[in-house]
Amino acid sequence: MASADLHALYRNYIACLNLQDWPRLADFVAADVCHNGRRLGVAGYRAMLEKDFEDIPDLRFAIELLVADHEVVASRLRFDCAPRGTFLGLPVNGKKVSFTENVFYEVRERKILQVWSIIDRPAIEAQL
Amino acid sequence: MASADLHALYRNYIACLNLQDWPRLADFVAADVCHNGRRLGVAGYRAMLEKDFEDIPDLRFAIELLVADHEVVASRLRFDCAPRGTFLGLPVNGKKVSFTENVFYEVRERKILQVWSIIDRPAIEAQL
Repeated sequence: MASADLHALYRNYIACLNLQDWPRLADFVAADVCHNGRRLGVAGYRAMLEKDFEDIPDLRFAIELLVADHEVVASRLRFDCAPRGTFLGLPVNGKKVSFTENVFYEVRERKILQVWSIIDRPAIEAQL
Repeated sequence: MASADLHALYRNYIACLNLQDWPRLADFVAADVCHNGRRLGVAGYRAMLEKDFEDIPDLRFAIELLVADHEVVASRLRFDCAPRGTFLGLPVNGKKVSFTENVFYEVRERKILQVWSIIDRPAIEAQL
């Protein structure tokens, strides 16, 4: 896919997440989608995201950097939110924190097939 | 810069690191380079890398994914190495571990000006 098409696809995917428009998720995510090496499928991927919004009621995905070419999208996402209870093993307990995620996606046939995500956990730790 | 030029620049930068060819580092890194928001400059950046090679004698940067466009390079790097002593606050003590880093770079005038790196520390933790 051309870079501009990948950018548009990705921005629509992020809009879908922020709207929690789960019936549309399969428009962006392949039937056998994998996340950090685990094959989740659309239902498992949706369950992961639904749990994220349950744990973080004010969750919002904001794109800070976006670069895409051929079959790869790379995005740096920023989050300003207040996770409830324990988050990534850290006792956040509703405190407002700011952190980033650097994430790569493999796109095949206009859908996300693989996701390799790393969240900046030490940045959260430093804010507690 | 065109995507192909950024790819070439980045691969040469990684080759420079793997050769520990520090006199050439300033060919790739801007005079006022910042790493995760800290302004290091070339000397500080070199000192950081030299310390990495001191702490990890068998350190080698391997590019797993690379995507670049305009002024941004995104790379997923893989490391298979045996850090000495404590690494990222973890008691690795010479054990061979495998982990990744998802990293973005802003490139200006053919040199790296900003680096935003996140290392997959939980992956290392899981191997100890």
